[in-house]
Amino acid sequence: MDKPYVLGLDMGGTNSVLGIVDARGHVLARISIKTQEYTDINDYVNALYTEALKIINPIGGMEMIRGIGAGAPNANYYSGNIENAANLPWKGIVPFAHLMSEKFGVPCTITNDANAAAMGEMMYGAARGMKNFIMITLGTGVGSGIVIDGRMVYGHDGFAGELGHTKIDRSANARLCGCGQKGCIETYASANGVARTAKEIVSSTTKETMLRQLDIDKITSFDVFKAAEAGDVVAKEIFDYTGTLLGQKLADFVAFSAPEAIFLFGGLTKSGHWIMDPVVRSLNENVMPLWKNKVKVMFSDLKEADAAILGASALAWE
Amino acid sequence: MDKPYVLGLDMGGTNSVLGIVDARGHVLARISIKTQEYTDINDYVNALYTEALKIINPIGGMEMIRGIGAGAPNANYYSGNIENAANLPWKGIVPFAHLMSEKFGVPCTITNDANAAAMGEMMYGAARGMKNFIMITLGTGVGSGIVIDGRMVYGHDGFAGELGHTKIDRSANARLCGCGQKGCIETYASANGVARTAKEIVSSTTKETMLRQLDIDKITSFDVFKAAEAGDVVAKEIFDYTGTLLGQKLADFVAFSAPEAIFLFGGLTKSGHWIMDPVVRSLNENVMPLWKNKVKVMFSDLKEADAAILGASALAWE
Repeated sequence: MDKPYVLGLDMGGTNSVLGIVDARGHVLARISIKTQEYTDINDYVNALYTEALKIINPIGGMEMIRGIGAGAPNANYYSGNIENAANLPWKGIVPFAHLMSEKFGVPCTITNDANAAAMGEMMYGAARGMKNFIMITLGTGVGSGIVIDGRMVYGHDGFAGELGHTKIDRSANARLCGCGQKGCIETYASANGVARTAKEIVSSTTKETMLRQLDIDKITSFDVFKAAEAGDVVAKEIFDYTGTLLGQKLADFVAFSAPEAIFLFGGLTKSGHWIMDPVVRSLNENVMPLWKNKVKVMFSDLKEADAAILGASALAWE
Repeated sequence: MDKPYVLGLDMGGTNSVLGIVDARGHVLARISIKTQEYTDINDYVNALYTEALKIINPIGGMEMIRGIGAGAPNANYYSGNIENAANLPWKGIVPFAHLMSEKFGVPCTITNDANAAAMGEMMYGAARGMKNFIMITLGTGVGSGIVIDGRMVYGHDGFAGELGHTKIDRSANARLCGCGQKGCIETYASANGVARTAKEIVSSTTKETMLRQLDIDKITSFDVFKAAEAGDVVAKEIFDYTGTLLGQKLADFVAFSAPEAIFLFGGLTKSGHWIMDPVVRSLNENVMPLWKNKVKVMFSDLKEADAAILGASALAWE
């Protein structure tokens, strides 16, 4: 093979990290730039190219690169556009795959970050050999990538897999979500959702908890994790509550696509068994009898730092 | 083509109807037997064969038949088995496709009834040309068949698409479902669910409604339809309530697979706009902004009497 490498780009709201990846899923080198510093998308692509050449030239230049895969918020696989991304500096519809492809001189394929994570898990992680699984990303929000019959689900318009915006609370006082809807599971089961639950408990109850000693506006899901580890009962309750709700929704997802496994990925999974145990319990309490204790729930097998790059790069091999 | 026809079997809890279908989706002839009369599955298959020959011999015998497709409750596409079907006389696991194939001497493929309806819609109905759609059957229960990228979703175990058993009510007093869970959308949005809602209102309120004149144990969804047509305010409320709940769940399904359209099929669709209007309103109130007023909701285009046979027969062409 005369072109042995691909580029994987993980575009986040803060940082964009680009790596060179070989066919065995090793990230040979990586660079990063600050996403928010470029208010013009062309400046962003140029900066990325300039930085990328610093690692590409040493391995033989662009003629060694087969293509680019990118994971980005609100990225549409079909159109190659990033569409109305709330957390990126470029508004409206950005023809990102086209711009990248023109600048780098190789094909560029894009998808959203959760789909990229699912691709990475399928090619390099614990989902190798699995034909049917769902990846749930528990970060700032809740994202999802769905694989059915070995293929990524993009849907009619390219935006399939927005499981973070299915509803867990349909009451009038359900939490407002960034998507404009109310009661989305994202508002409960994301890292932000856990922090939100903690703040609600601290401000609206008199329960004894070490979380009360923190600046209420700055409580994070990691604070809740540390408190749980230290034996804080309220912190444990918060994870139990969060996992219960997430498990309820996972049961609905199982009824949809009957996956072999559900993978959890992202910041909140650092909470380990505190989040996993209630999720598994609640899932099995809420699925139809035929699926009870049949669907595996696992943490992603990918190294956090490389996962998004690997996942995105997987697109470039297609 | 030397074998121009297939057989389509629609196995219901009461009747089993088998038809000869040509490649253009015409049902040339049909026979039926009473499912419940055969407590031994071998007797059932033998009776079906004997009856079927009465219509097969006139068109040239079994050498004209390419294969058999069957839609049956709890049928597993992968294994060819009917597994633990509550409404059929045969308990446990029945190797139905194998038995049919042996008796008829042609390949037999089976799937559940909702998947069969989706296949029929895709080959012969309003979903022709559509790659991504969801079929929801609103009959005794709520079934579903999901098509993604032009392919039926069977999942890891063959039981994908049990959307009737996703939850709409997670409260302690949610309705008990036949599946053993509580609060499934099936308990509200099926024909039986509508009847259940009507009975609850008649027995627990003093609202003025013509439904009160009926034997409460015998109220059907068709009675509610007739009352709505006659201007009964409570009957309209029942459809509004039912459609609102169903639309909420459809919004969740859209977030999963981003379908081009959702088709409604089965007995309850005879209620026409009484059920359609609140479903569409509620769906659009509950989807993410990007899908608002974008997803088509339609009644199935297939003739009720032939739909299940056509859908099942579609499997035999594969």
